[in-house]
Amino acid sequence: MSLEAPMIIVNFKAYAEAVGEGALRLAKAAERVWKETGVTIAVAPPATEIGAVALATEIPVLSQHIDPVEPGSYTGHITAEEVREAGAVGTLLNHSERRLILADLGLAVKRARDAGLVTVVCANNTPASAAAAALSPSYVAVEPPELIGTGIPVSRARPEVVTSTVEAVRRVNPGVGVICGAGISRGEDVGAALRLGTLGVLLASGVVKAKDPEAVLTEMASHALGR
Amino acid sequence: MSLEAPMIIVNFKAYAEAVGEGALRLAKAAERVWKETGVTIAVAPPATEIGAVALATEIPVLSQHIDPVEPGSYTGHITAEEVREAGAVGTLLNHSERRLILADLGLAVKRARDAGLVTVVCANNTPASAAAAALSPSYVAVEPPELIGTGIPVSRARPEVVTSTVEAVRRVNPGVGVICGAGISRGEDVGAALRLGTLGVLLASGVVKAKDPEAVLTEMASHALGR
Amino acid sequence: MSLEAPMIIVNFKAYAEAVGEGALRLAKAAERVWKETGVTIAVAPPATEIGAVALATEIPVLSQHIDPVEPGSYTGHITAEEVREAGAVGTLLNHSERRLILADLGLAVKRARDAGLVTVVCANNTPASAAAAALSPSYVAVEPPELIGTGIPVSRARPEVVTSTVEAVRRVNPGVGVICGAGISRGEDVGAALRLGTLGVLLASGVVKAKDPEAVLTEMASHALGR
Amino acid sequence: MSLEAPMIIVNFKAYAEAVGEGALRLAKAAERVWKETGVTIAVAPPATEIGAVALATEIPVLSQHIDPVEPGSYTGHITAEEVREAGAVGTLLNHSERRLILADLGLAVKRARDAGLVTVVCANNTPASAAAAALSPSYVAVEPPELIGTGIPVSRARPEVVTSTVEAVRRVNPGVGVICGAGISRGEDVGAALRLGTLGVLLASGVVKAKDPEAVLTEMASHALGR
Repeated sequence: MSLEAPMIIVNFKAYAEAVGEGALRLAKAAERVWKETGVTIAVAPPATEIGAVALATEIPVLSQHIDPVEPGSYTGHITAEEVREAGAVGTLLNHSERRLILADLGLAVKRARDAGLVTVVCANNTPASAAAAALSPSYVAVEPPELIGTGIPVSRARPEVVTSTVEAVRRVNPGVGVICGAGISRGEDVGAALRLGTLGVLLASGVVKAKDPEAVLTEMASHALGR
Repeated sequence: MSLEAPMIIVNFKAYAEAVGEGALRLAKAAERVWKETGVTIAVAPPATEIGAVALATEIPVLSQHIDPVEPGSYTGHITAEEVREAGAVGTLLNHSERRLILADLGLAVKRARDAGLVTVVCANNTPASAAAAALSPSYVAVEPPELIGTGIPVSRARPEVVTSTVEAVRRVNPGVGVICGAGISRGEDVGAALRLGTLGVLLASGVVKAKDPEAVLTEMASHALGR
Repeated sequence: MSLEAPMIIVNFKAYAEAVGEGALRLAKAAERVWKETGVTIAVAPPATEIGAVALATEIPVLSQHIDPVEPGSYTGHITAEEVREAGAVGTLLNHSERRLILADLGLAVKRARDAGLVTVVCANNTPASAAAAALSPSYVAVEPPELIGTGIPVSRARPEVVTSTVEAVRRVNPGVGVICGAGISRGEDVGAALRLGTLGVLLASGVVKAKDPEAVLTEMASHALGR
Repeated sequence: MSLEAPMIIVNFKAYAEAVGEGALRLAKAAERVWKETGVTIAVAPPATEIGAVALATEIPVLSQHIDPVEPGSYTGHITAEEVREAGAVGTLLNHSERRLILADLGLAVKRARDAGLVTVVCANNTPASAAAAALSPSYVAVEPPELIGTGIPVSRARPEVVTSTVEAVRRVNPGVGVICGAGISRGEDVGAALRLGTLGVLLASGVVKAKDPEAVLTEMASHALGR
């Protein structure tokens, strides 16, 4: 239940560009970059697109969220089993746009783990990242919400948040990897993130809304390899 | 944006029986009953199964929920556009297991309508049904939560809730149809619901967890036709 | 369970000006204006200040919110009984900063009514106001959220929202009074609100953050009386 | 910002017994036991009763909850400043009946700390307690929700949860004290909790709904002192 580092996780959010054909186009671009560079590129499409994306590509597909419930009487919920059945190998959790209460977050991590899913728990700052690490997810993704979607990379605007998170997570739970996100849109942002001690990045608009997502990913992968 | 009455809406919830092959099996059983009887049978699979079910059958597919947001930066949300693209023709909203705040419910109804989706807004009693009707959905489904999953049909346990809802909704907004749910598991429950003035029923475990869902639906359709 | 029209309801929110001595100062200013003009002025202080404000003044005190629960095992909740015991005669509900799901809103209105409290249900537009009216509160307060705190009064910026709400509420439930809010900060805004068919206004920063709250309220009361 | 150990924190919840005169009676009983035994007894009345209880007694008064917001435009919220002004010296946070999302919990702890309030963060199990400790509250109160209100004490039913929490919290943040709760209703439960390494207990119905709360508290204090 882990992804190979370095990794780039592309969150499709609910962007208009990431529905139907758009989701497939993005996922296939990501797959080509992975095949050419060897850098792990995972995609997190909307729930309705997980099945099609998983069928059409070989790259890791993540859900954007799961609910902390077992299969059962839960209308409008998304379970670990459902996303795994659709082809996901993991899930984001606790994104700033889809926060969970602490007890549910712990339960969602456990349910995902029990279903064999990789978990990437988002957190807004260093203390919250340390807290998230105590729940033993696969990864913690530290993302200062105020930078999300700005194009101002966390690795440049708040490098101390990234390094203090790497340290805090190691202290609480050394088995948990750290990635970072918010404002990542260029290759150099990825390189900087790795040099700060992370295993990779989580991003969204920087790729999804790019004119040429494949070119952006290729540049990012190149920086991830230190080239 | 309407379904032909009488109608039976089968909510797959997050039941284990309704994932992957199970979802297709249930949907195909529903389709056969529709073809044989002419009674509208709609299904509401988990978000991850909408695409596959819509591809495999010709019956109306509903989402179990949509979020009241436009396409955009909304991780872990489900938009009207996403479910329509996946093949849904409508959506449940405000199910007792997935309630919405009033302002969001109004917005979700509007967003679904603008996307050309049928809306079935669930409500827990007569005043809430009247309130829901003021938001101009296609249908209001009155479901006393205490009867959900019990096998004790609302049409028998609380017929006055159903009739008072039919009256209240007609007074507030005569263009809104009423269906009822909670505890519906046999053909006679469906017949009773229609005699109380509804256009059909919303049910879940009574079909999804039945040993022979097709037989249950056939009996329900038969009663819906007054046979 | 009603307030005498015309009425001005001052929501203290969680403003720094409205805690401790500040709450008492505001409430006493409101009381003086009421005594001098006869115009109903109700205040909605923070929960922690209800008791002190109710003890120190004779004007109607409202809670800003109650939870839809009976007395019992509900940590961090506020019940109808608690606010009544503290001296409140009513409560705001469903403010745009404290929304409730539809089922809870219906239950909160019922619980408040059963406890003898006046209910003022906020709603963001005309359909939501009509929906709220179906729950039979004492009043519906229509407040377009985009105007709250702007100083641009709803009565001037969106008069058609106010008049269509007055009509829609009358159609759904003629026993429910309509007030309006958002951007109300001057006497003429109050006069305009009454001419549009409302029974009064709900406001906050326009009074709480005014240099001279008593002068603002006096001018508002004067306009409310058509002088 | 700490309480003297051993400590007994009595959560009044929204119990009918804890409103108005009842709140004062309970608080005064707690005060007498504290004066006679020297064991810290803190009380957490409903928000509307904080002022009266703080005025009438000298024991530590806690809020049951605060919202993670600064003073401002937040209707129906409770701020750190409000409860401090009313006389509280601290607050419970994240009780199983009033959970917070992780980011808000971190912010609420910070806001309370900045206002000089003691913080007691509830958590449902050991990993969540460790996570809570990473946010640097004054105390973590581990409470398996399934035991709350049962009279089956966590210290007897799940002692391993208490000891593993004490260890995990010490590892993550040794400056954070651990207390435990759920099912605590007798003196021996308090003694057992202390022997498991906690600094005290959090309880509610065991005292609030007791026929003679003072006798129960006296027995508990006696066990807390090892007599």
